Amino acid sequence: MNKISSSSTLIVEGKYRLGVRVYYEDTDAGGIVYYANYLKFSERARTEMLRTIGYEHQDNGKNYGVSFVVRTCNVEFFNPGMLDDLLEVETEILMVRGASIRMRQNIKRGSQELVLMEIKLACISSNGNPVRIPIALRNRISDLILLKGDG
Amino acid sequence: MNKISSSSTLIVEGKYRLGVRVYYEDTDAGGIVYYANYLKFSERARTEMLRTIGYEHQDNGKNYGVSFVVRTCNVEFFNPGMLDDLLEVETEILMVRGASIRMRQNIKRGSQELVLMEIKLACISSNGNPVRIPIALRNRISDLILLKGDG
Amino acid sequence: MNKISSSSTLIVEGKYRLGVRVYYEDTDAGGIVYYANYLKFSERARTEMLRTIGYEHQDNGKNYGVSFVVRTCNVEFFNPGMLDDLLEVETEILMVRGASIRMRQNIKRGSQELVLMEIKLACISSNGNPVRIPIALRNRISDLILLKGDG
Amino acid sequence: MNKISSSSTLIVEGKYRLGVRVYYEDTDAGGIVYYANYLKFSERARTEMLRTIGYEHQDNGKNYGVSFVVRTCNVEFFNPGMLDDLLEVETEILMVRGASIRMRQNIKRGSQELVLMEIKLACISSNGNPVRIPIALRNRISDLILLKGDG
Repeated sequence: MNKISSSSTLIVEGKYRLGVRVYYEDTDAGGIVYYANYLKFSERARTEMLRTIGYEHQDNGKNYGVSFVVRTCNVEFFNPGMLDDLLEVETEILMVRGASIRMRQNIKRGSQELVLMEIKLACISSNGNPVRIPIALRNRISDLILLKGDG
Repeated sequence: MNKISSSSTLIVEGKYRLGVRVYYEDTDAGGIVYYANYLKFSERARTEMLRTIGYEHQDNGKNYGVSFVVRTCNVEFFNPGMLDDLLEVETEILMVRGASIRMRQNIKRGSQELVLMEIKLACISSNGNPVRIPIALRNRISDLILLKGDG
Repeated sequence: MNKISSSSTLIVEGKYRLGVRVYYEDTDAGGIVYYANYLKFSERARTEMLRTIGYEHQDNGKNYGVSFVVRTCNVEFFNPGMLDDLLEVETEILMVRGASIRMRQNIKRGSQELVLMEIKLACISSNGNPVRIPIALRNRISDLILLKGDG
Repeated sequence: MNKISSSSTLIVEGKYRLGVRVYYEDTDAGGIVYYANYLKFSERARTEMLRTIGYEHQDNGKNYGVSFVVRTCNVEFFNPGMLDDLLEVETEILMVRGASIRMRQNIKRGSQELVLMEIKLACISSNGNPVRIPIALRNRISDLILLKGDG
């Protein structure tokens, strides 16, 4: 079994896929998606992937007392997205450590790769200090990786 | 018959409904959706409604040689949207005239009304001058209204 | 005397002027400023106008226990802004009432008017309920109007 | 001489500095600047730095027939920016090659470093293909580096 079905999404072989439509708001006068907006798309995908394991940003502060912030973000832009495109953000957790998570995210149009990101998220407490990921949460996130190997 | 089924949307009684999730990008330090971002949500809904009749922004320039711009936009903000909310944008065409379209758009969270907009779109040519809506396009847009009365 | 000098801004005849440069982030694939972004420009201008009387959003919550939210926003779009344009946002307070403020904001490129907005701001407490504007703050805001008449 | 004076900016020791105010639009429900928005700030700074040598995005297409796109963008986030902060973006050209430019950009609040970016820009023709930077333009950009050594 290597699928978790969600509202409209799937995790297959450890990769979570989210469809993202390109609207006017996402484009710029160069006629293409503005480069910073791919970071919005990838954040939506990370949020939805976490939602599949029951994690919601608002509730989580109350439940776990922690949140995640981006520490590093390395991005390569291969091809531009265009207005009306239906893109796919493919998100894969590479590693879960004590206080951080590493992910790789690809943004594609069909089989064509547009953008590749590697992201490091850090877990912080409500006052902004780095803290260990609560074990219950960490186990659930780790489950997202384990799905990868059992195809 | 008062339904046009689309990918994941419906027009029922002349109202087109689009679900919109609130992400971090949409919120501000006040903890609520930033007021200008509701205009992004409403533009997505207008775009998707037009897509149900086969209108795509990119292709349209080639096919019809026209596009639509917002001329007036009157907005009332009743209640704030919050992070993680799943909102619904309800769009209704009020009137199609020779060179303009009037719409009303409600943004709701469940039954609670957050934002009400009245929008006037003008049809412009590729050089930015106002022009009449091509008759073939106008007929298809008018069909979206006619659905309202025949429930 | 009808001037309050600020870092780089002036209030002359009751009108506060802020220069805004148009960057790629502000434009869309239509080659013009995306319509929702004028609401960002106008919010920057309101913020800077309030800064001239010593009001800062972050500090104000502590000092007065209130903040302002937009209740209504009526916008007319006359002409499009373009990449690299240096626009001017002209802000005028029309009326200060017990719990709300009305403003008119023009966005111009040279003498050409691009956008006209009328905005109603409501004063809210930290729990989001409408409250009266604290008298000390209200007096300072009213001073911004009084400057208008004594030119 | 190691200064080029601009409207409100300076290049000192090869570093171009631009002040950026943080507004509500830049923040998110976490109470801090949304991570993608630092890419907007850095793009503003690159644009203004190029403006000091007479390069404007809109005009340039006509004059040189080329534009620049971001190919890679490596970002580290050290500390969060907050509402009302007056940040400084410090931009330094590291290398100008035949068809690309490398820059380092620091975003600071006073002496505190918030974000560090390394950016590679590629020169493209109007049809999106990579092309060599026109020699006249390249010379002017290289001048921005040469300023560094002669302090």
